[in-house]
Amino acid sequence: MKNYTKIKDISNLSETIKDAILLKMNPFEFQDLGKHKTLVMLFFNSSLRTRLSTEKAAKNLGMEVMMLNINDAWNLEFEDGTIMNMDKSEHIKEAAQVISQYADVIAVRAFPTLEDKAKDESEYILNNFKKYATVPIINMESATAHPLQALADAITITELTEKAKPKVVLSWAPHPKALPQAVANSFIEMMQELEVDLTITHPKGYELSKEITKNTPINHNQEDALKDADFVYVKNWSSYNDYGKVLNQDDNWMLTKAKLGHAKFMHCLPVRRNVIVEDAVLDSEQSVVIKQANNRTYAAQVVLKQILEGL
Amino acid sequence: MKNYTKIKDISNLSETIKDAILLKMNPFEFQDLGKHKTLVMLFFNSSLRTRLSTEKAAKNLGMEVMMLNINDAWNLEFEDGTIMNMDKSEHIKEAAQVISQYADVIAVRAFPTLEDKAKDESEYILNNFKKYATVPIINMESATAHPLQALADAITITELTEKAKPKVVLSWAPHPKALPQAVANSFIEMMQELEVDLTITHPKGYELSKEITKNTPINHNQEDALKDADFVYVKNWSSYNDYGKVLNQDDNWMLTKAKLGHAKFMHCLPVRRNVIVEDAVLDSEQSVVIKQANNRTYAAQVVLKQILEGL
Amino acid sequence: MKNYTKIKDISNLSETIKDAILLKMNPFEFQDLGKHKTLVMLFFNSSLRTRLSTEKAAKNLGMEVMMLNINDAWNLEFEDGTIMNMDKSEHIKEAAQVISQYADVIAVRAFPTLEDKAKDESEYILNNFKKYATVPIINMESATAHPLQALADAITITELTEKAKPKVVLSWAPHPKALPQAVANSFIEMMQELEVDLTITHPKGYELSKEITKNTPINHNQEDALKDADFVYVKNWSSYNDYGKVLNQDDNWMLTKAKLGHAKFMHCLPVRRNVIVEDAVLDSEQSVVIKQANNRTYAAQVVLKQILEGL
Repeated sequence: MKNYTKIKDISNLSETIKDAILLKMNPFEFQDLGKHKTLVMLFFNSSLRTRLSTEKAAKNLGMEVMMLNINDAWNLEFEDGTIMNMDKSEHIKEAAQVISQYADVIAVRAFPTLEDKAKDESEYILNNFKKYATVPIINMESATAHPLQALADAITITELTEKAKPKVVLSWAPHPKALPQAVANSFIEMMQELEVDLTITHPKGYELSKEITKNTPINHNQEDALKDADFVYVKNWSSYNDYGKVLNQDDNWMLTKAKLGHAKFMHCLPVRRNVIVEDAVLDSEQSVVIKQANNRTYAAQVVLKQILEGL
Repeated sequence: MKNYTKIKDISNLSETIKDAILLKMNPFEFQDLGKHKTLVMLFFNSSLRTRLSTEKAAKNLGMEVMMLNINDAWNLEFEDGTIMNMDKSEHIKEAAQVISQYADVIAVRAFPTLEDKAKDESEYILNNFKKYATVPIINMESATAHPLQALADAITITELTEKAKPKVVLSWAPHPKALPQAVANSFIEMMQELEVDLTITHPKGYELSKEITKNTPINHNQEDALKDADFVYVKNWSSYNDYGKVLNQDDNWMLTKAKLGHAKFMHCLPVRRNVIVEDAVLDSEQSVVIKQANNRTYAAQVVLKQILEGL
Repeated sequence: MKNYTKIKDISNLSETIKDAILLKMNPFEFQDLGKHKTLVMLFFNSSLRTRLSTEKAAKNLGMEVMMLNINDAWNLEFEDGTIMNMDKSEHIKEAAQVISQYADVIAVRAFPTLEDKAKDESEYILNNFKKYATVPIINMESATAHPLQALADAITITELTEKAKPKVVLSWAPHPKALPQAVANSFIEMMQELEVDLTITHPKGYELSKEITKNTPINHNQEDALKDADFVYVKNWSSYNDYGKVLNQDDNWMLTKAKLGHAKFMHCLPVRRNVIVEDAVLDSEQSVVIKQANNRTYAAQVVLKQILEGL
């Protein structure tokens, strides 16, 4: 693996999932692989799970980890040819090349603006790091994708499914603030690669990019969509067509125990209780969100392992 | 030791102090004990000594350390059953369970509001971590207690006392801002466990919780209280009865060289010079504050050692 | 080496540069030297290169690294004898002594005010750390000096020069904000120690301290100064005489490809493109800024190595 910025960077998904599950059983087996190798983690945005799980994954492999919150450094310019006489002190061209010399792998977290669709879709932060860095890049959630989360989700479903082809439903849920589409996008793309029967349900106006959803069935009737589900992944996202807008806060879309049926409940966390999902779901045995979060470590670790093996 | 959130979590205090002094002489003796173990340090508030000494203690034992300033992540909700549609993005139930999967031990620093006494006394942050985490919790100063500081204080007095039962005086001193009672509370509880003759002195209105002070003599005449003291521990705290208020800024309560007599001067630091205590005290041989701060490492290290041995 | 706060702390410069180049070829050769030694890095200001390269250098030597952004701790008081009843919670006397107990080496970054010349020139932050700390101090850029940068610059010129005595030009360039003189100062002092022919060029009013420039020729005609240069180091600084002021933003002083001639282009980074220097320079083979930044690691590493050898 050269970079891990999108689902398609995984060449053999079922092998990768199996490998992650093996790492979970024996996290320190490859502790020499990362010796004298450094992961630099760069944060443009807040992080809890991604930060801790990726740091832990790297250390399990014997890597050194260096952290940088970008606001501890300089505002970066991403445009070409600008006269940098405003608030940006350093160009990504220099920053990415320089950090590459202190790192063997660079991991970047950079959320979308949710205001400028074209800019967000260009993935200008992540892609400029890919363009100018001279070491592999890992996406710790970008404007449009969260592939480490999706890999943890795939590991979780693989571990917990009782069927050869489970029914998986991705359901939108209400949220007071505008959130990115990244988690939903990557989850859909990942499920399209797995042996699952995927359905998406959301209110009208919350259609995701057709380049992501492709032929996956979309049902605007949540109750109908949830019928006989084995896994229900709930997530809010803001409108993609009416870009970054909160169009709907209808709490009938909150997931309840009654709607969940016998399914397992998934969410990437952080989750707002009694807004996205009621307490009765999260506090039940059917919630697997804590296991999902645990798998973040092994998703990151298998990605780092494959990258280190390819160095 | 299962957790270290309060003085009473130490089962054998004199053994623990002896152990800490041995660790100080040979800090790396147990460097294999923490191998493949991770300490996650969570900060809701500022820290200098606690942060550095606890990190160092963990590394002396061979542990990995991961740091998280909570403001680099999400605002946490601690109430049960709330509809989380305001500024809190994640519930402590999820946060504590999730972090437990990345950690073998979690250390938490969370100061009181000094506005809502019942809330502070409930120790809702620390106790919710204890309730929902699945790994041991260390208190790096909570709303009402600072047991790592108190253990460093006990180590310091044990090392430096020239008497079998020294006279120890805890004296309030003025301060421009409202400060917690945590350090005073834990110092008193710790001294009650040691072979010392403890006296508390403070202006009227600064009575601490009776559940803490119990039978310890309280003298509102500072000069009288300080007579023949061997150790004088000076600390400001805001009013407990008139909760969180600064009732008195009388600089006659500042500790001077004259008042100190032959005693050794102690303070947890940071200390405001010429407000809490005059320069002449801090700059004299009688001040042991730097030694106290050094013992923070070995207090944290003996606690981590006992916790690791119990895993 | 006892401390590294200024160029003169290097006792044998050519040996030190050779050593750094050897470390670059074999960064882990001395990985046991730092075992059980801790570097504490203290930041009063933003940092990218200095932070990452110094952390990496320490880890290459096997050291533990602990980071503290001072705004995660307390405001420090540096004046003697003050009544600390305002916004400063801790005196440098205590802070420096305390941190020394958790560290084997302390590195400090603290920029000038650019308002109070006497205060900046007193180097009150750095010098108070030197005065009160009980372990070696490394300057990660202070009010008036950036000796780690200058050492990286010297390594870079030594590696890349094709002449026994290359012509090196330090040229001022425009910038929208007031910047320190530190990089220019240390570069000049370093070049005065090397076998180079150094010329300084800047608009009138931008004279640096005579204690720094000494007999180094100063030419107010940039074009003339740049003639036949082998290395051109471009840097903005604010006025020293009219202290901290931006007197001139004349973009004729921006470095262009035409002006550069056959010389190699140097800059400490971050650099504002098309303000300090045009894209055509930075994007050409003549730019060595990325190599310079890489040498920051080995500058820091050779300094740490010499300090560790002297412990």
